[in-house]
Amino acid sequence: MKTHLDCLPCLLNQALRAARTATDDENIHRQVVDAVAGMIPGLPLDLKPPELAQQAYRIIHRIVGDSDPYRREKEESNRAALAVYPRLKQLVEQSADGIYTACKLAIIGNSIDFGPSAFDNSNLEGIIDTAMKQPLAINSYDRFLDRLHKCNSLLYLGDNAGEIVLDRLLIEEICNGNRGMEVHFVVRGRSVINDATLEDALMVGMDGVARVISSGSDAPATILSQCSEEVNNLYRSADVIIVKGQGNYESLEGEGGNTFFLLRSKCQLIADLLGVKVGDFILKENPEASFGSSQP
Amino acid sequence: MKTHLDCLPCLLNQALRAARTATDDENIHRQVVDAVAGMIPGLPLDLKPPELAQQAYRIIHRIVGDSDPYRREKEESNRAALAVYPRLKQLVEQSADGIYTACKLAIIGNSIDFGPSAFDNSNLEGIIDTAMKQPLAINSYDRFLDRLHKCNSLLYLGDNAGEIVLDRLLIEEICNGNRGMEVHFVVRGRSVINDATLEDALMVGMDGVARVISSGSDAPATILSQCSEEVNNLYRSADVIIVKGQGNYESLEGEGGNTFFLLRSKCQLIADLLGVKVGDFILKENPEASFGSSQP
Repeated sequence: MKTHLDCLPCLLNQALRAARTATDDENIHRQVVDAVAGMIPGLPLDLKPPELAQQAYRIIHRIVGDSDPYRREKEESNRAALAVYPRLKQLVEQSADGIYTACKLAIIGNSIDFGPSAFDNSNLEGIIDTAMKQPLAINSYDRFLDRLHKCNSLLYLGDNAGEIVLDRLLIEEICNGNRGMEVHFVVRGRSVINDATLEDALMVGMDGVARVISSGSDAPATILSQCSEEVNNLYRSADVIIVKGQGNYESLEGEGGNTFFLLRSKCQLIADLLGVKVGDFILKENPEASFGSSQP
Repeated sequence: MKTHLDCLPCLLNQALRAARTATDDENIHRQVVDAVAGMIPGLPLDLKPPELAQQAYRIIHRIVGDSDPYRREKEESNRAALAVYPRLKQLVEQSADGIYTACKLAIIGNSIDFGPSAFDNSNLEGIIDTAMKQPLAINSYDRFLDRLHKCNSLLYLGDNAGEIVLDRLLIEEICNGNRGMEVHFVVRGRSVINDATLEDALMVGMDGVARVISSGSDAPATILSQCSEEVNNLYRSADVIIVKGQGNYESLEGEGGNTFFLLRSKCQLIADLLGVKVGDFILKENPEASFGSSQP
């Protein structure tokens, strides 16, 4: 999707939030706001919103003087999610449809975000318990399950640290019913906000359930033109692509692919585009998917 | 109050909203966003938030090429409020405490705003009916009523077009119980967003219940240093000052005065400062009021 004018004030807001997460120094917060505001005039709106965010986060890293200012927060997110993992694993194993439960947990895990979301993520267990009672606002689960049954190669585009623990749980459950499946899990090529990188994937043991590869880009999204040839090849060839989070949705919506978007809607613009409310949980089949759109 | 860094992205958002209200031309929307973003670096944060808004709205007027781009919307707001006036007048007259009912309606009237609020104001009657069931989140009504009983001179600082119809209703009800009271109603000195000016006051018959005077400034607020000597004298001498809306609150909070703030809280920052939720309705006595803070 292209950038809307509404994305520009939101970008400034995100930059301020990111600066505050990175440091308590109010002078730096102000420098970040000024630098990102100063970059707005002339920004081409035919870029995707995460491409603007990518530029803003590069500015933040430069001003903060740290290429990974959210390392500590990301590790805490991973630890918090790993701490609830045993209980969630049990929940999945005891449920009538383990893949559905794991799928919903993975979508709820997308609440863990320092980007556009202003959700309070401090109480992960409470968030999960509340959210599990909420139905998915868009629910292509029947199609998703059908496609998984015929799937030999799964490409999983991760989003945030912490969240990837719930992604691992979903991958475990999917592979449990289809042991021969080849799974690739894509992380960001370099640190950008709290997005998961290789370090996070290793910290949560993702390498035990999937081949973890780098996107090749520091965008907080999957900008295919910036991604490695391997990621592009997998994107074209995978039987099923699981795309996590709003940034990845913004970058891949309209790009084709055998995609299911799993995300929490985090701003009014995306909520309006999807026809849902801010905060809703989504499992949406790509209407342009080459495996067609006939109902099961 | 001083400007917080959070006010800067909000200012950009307001500017975009104001541009869209003024014109459908997307090129102008972009020009406005660029110009206001470009003004952010270097803005002194010791200014009050409405002083920044004042600068932004001057930019918008210049780019749109119209010194009063919201005239039509303001007239519509006045007409919509005048249309419900007879029913509200009856509601006040039939209620056990007419001043309380009129006071609450005047606070609810502060929902009519094109500024920081994103509330849907299209259905005024529906808003009023719903809001009347909601208690005030801060309620200094007992103190307010006590002060009104001893009041000979009332200064009423208005906020938005449309809303002023409900201000008129409150003034009528106050004067009904205190016929000798001198009432001054202050409007903005020049057009700024949908804030009420002299034209609006005359359109809704405010001159029949109060002496209508101009603030002398085009700020969407009451910046005393920009206001006329008359307004400053009245501010120092009035027995009771009714201050409507968040802009006036932001400019007068901390300035002393025998003030009661009547407003709807319209952003998270103000909600946090007041200890309420966004959207809450407030009747708050100024803790610095020279008539003291002893309980009645």
